[in-house]
Amino acid sequence: MKLVRYGAMGAEKPGLMDGDTLRDLSAHVDDITGAVLDDATLDRLRALDPASLPVVEGAPRIGACVGNIGKFLCIGLNYSDHAAETGADIPEHPILFFKANSAVVGPNDDVMMPRGSTHTDWEVELGVVIGREAKYVSKEDALDYVAGYCVVNDVSERHFQTQLTGQWTKGKSCDTFGPTGPWLVTRDEVPDPQALAMSLDVNGKRMQTGTTSTMIFTVAEIIEHLSGLFTLHPGDVITTGTPPGVGMGMKPPVYLKSGDVMELEIEGLGRQRQKVGQDA
Amino acid sequence: MKLVRYGAMGAEKPGLMDGDTLRDLSAHVDDITGAVLDDATLDRLRALDPASLPVVEGAPRIGACVGNIGKFLCIGLNYSDHAAETGADIPEHPILFFKANSAVVGPNDDVMMPRGSTHTDWEVELGVVIGREAKYVSKEDALDYVAGYCVVNDVSERHFQTQLTGQWTKGKSCDTFGPTGPWLVTRDEVPDPQALAMSLDVNGKRMQTGTTSTMIFTVAEIIEHLSGLFTLHPGDVITTGTPPGVGMGMKPPVYLKSGDVMELEIEGLGRQRQKVGQDA
Repeated sequence: MKLVRYGAMGAEKPGLMDGDTLRDLSAHVDDITGAVLDDATLDRLRALDPASLPVVEGAPRIGACVGNIGKFLCIGLNYSDHAAETGADIPEHPILFFKANSAVVGPNDDVMMPRGSTHTDWEVELGVVIGREAKYVSKEDALDYVAGYCVVNDVSERHFQTQLTGQWTKGKSCDTFGPTGPWLVTRDEVPDPQALAMSLDVNGKRMQTGTTSTMIFTVAEIIEHLSGLFTLHPGDVITTGTPPGVGMGMKPPVYLKSGDVMELEIEGLGRQRQKVGQDA
Repeated sequence: MKLVRYGAMGAEKPGLMDGDTLRDLSAHVDDITGAVLDDATLDRLRALDPASLPVVEGAPRIGACVGNIGKFLCIGLNYSDHAAETGADIPEHPILFFKANSAVVGPNDDVMMPRGSTHTDWEVELGVVIGREAKYVSKEDALDYVAGYCVVNDVSERHFQTQLTGQWTKGKSCDTFGPTGPWLVTRDEVPDPQALAMSLDVNGKRMQTGTTSTMIFTVAEIIEHLSGLFTLHPGDVITTGTPPGVGMGMKPPVYLKSGDVMELEIEGLGRQRQKVGQDA
């Protein structure tokens, strides 16, 4: 199942992709949030005949594919080749930082660089949406706690991230720095989250090419580690690091400017497209 | 006004302290969350005759004084004497990390050390509750965006914080590591947030003694800095760092163990008391 949220920011309605057709789920759930991501509810939605759901006419805005995200957890330096390009050592444990949930936007919304930003960068990442409470979960069982997967652009202001005294979160949490979606693809449609091709273009030029097979810590290992620290709740999102090709890693580095266009894709999870602007 | 949330975890009701008497606000607001922290709503509540509100009988559990917290933002090393005790340099900008909002509990709930934790520590801190949306706010105007203040215990697992490869948030986000309250004291009752005495005892022994007057970055400066990075939303909480006397700073270091009792107080903001346990 490909679950979608559509409509104006803050007033999104739940939908479902039936092939290329967007259909309305409002009669069955209020929204796509942690409250409806348990297996029983997903099974109930899966049992619906898509043809029985109203077609959504026109081309509405697509919102983030999960609403009311509690924690937006980010894993850093999780691809060995990306760690190499940034000059960092391979970490011994998953590196964790938070992205403010107020940074989350739809997959095609504008990304607005904050005032004074001159080092804004891109990161295509596999997002993992938690479906049920996870605490002290083993990696063998970990994927049972996943509702599904999505594309995330972990937009990053490198100066804020590294030069504003400690803790990367400052460069990760700017408003609009978390495009998430278009779809929440339920885990039954993603048999192996460690075998997905991924790419990111800027202004039509391929910048990142990768595959989730080169992650240092797998999705299952990340869930095991994090759930040993604290409870993962339904609707929490974990974004799992980026493959090589970020602007910071180029020689010389390349950063985004107003008017640039980012296009991202992960195999089976859909595409994002963002125009870049800057706060006046 | 001293706003309170009382009742079972996850089902707290709104209340108001009338001297030492807890009164029920349910007829006037659904809960104490960002949705009711704007000046107009607070003025409306302030205009009520407390004697007209039902007295809450018995001694219910007190919850965190704000519900549905979006971002729980923490400032690190923000007291010059605490920075000295941990051997850290004075930061050039406020150090920011996130505490998971799933770590938030009531002021007198048990603090449960996670499995394997041997370095759990205490930190009495001034919490700042945002009342209205703040973006690019100057320090001169910053306190107008504050709904009120509260006590926070920024409980910290030092091994998780410093030894699990990067980013302090791992040691700050464990379940129950964010006791918040008892009261949200509205800002009209806190004329100077930089002149509040604070203390923390463990098993009746005074460990931390401080005053918010020795903060490196004031509440107003912190709001200016953070609101230049991203939007602060109503119901976001900023906890502003801890004065000297944490266990990590002692020679030799002292950490919490099961059965310990922490008692915290900030002038005018009330007291917290937590028993310490550990996950089996």
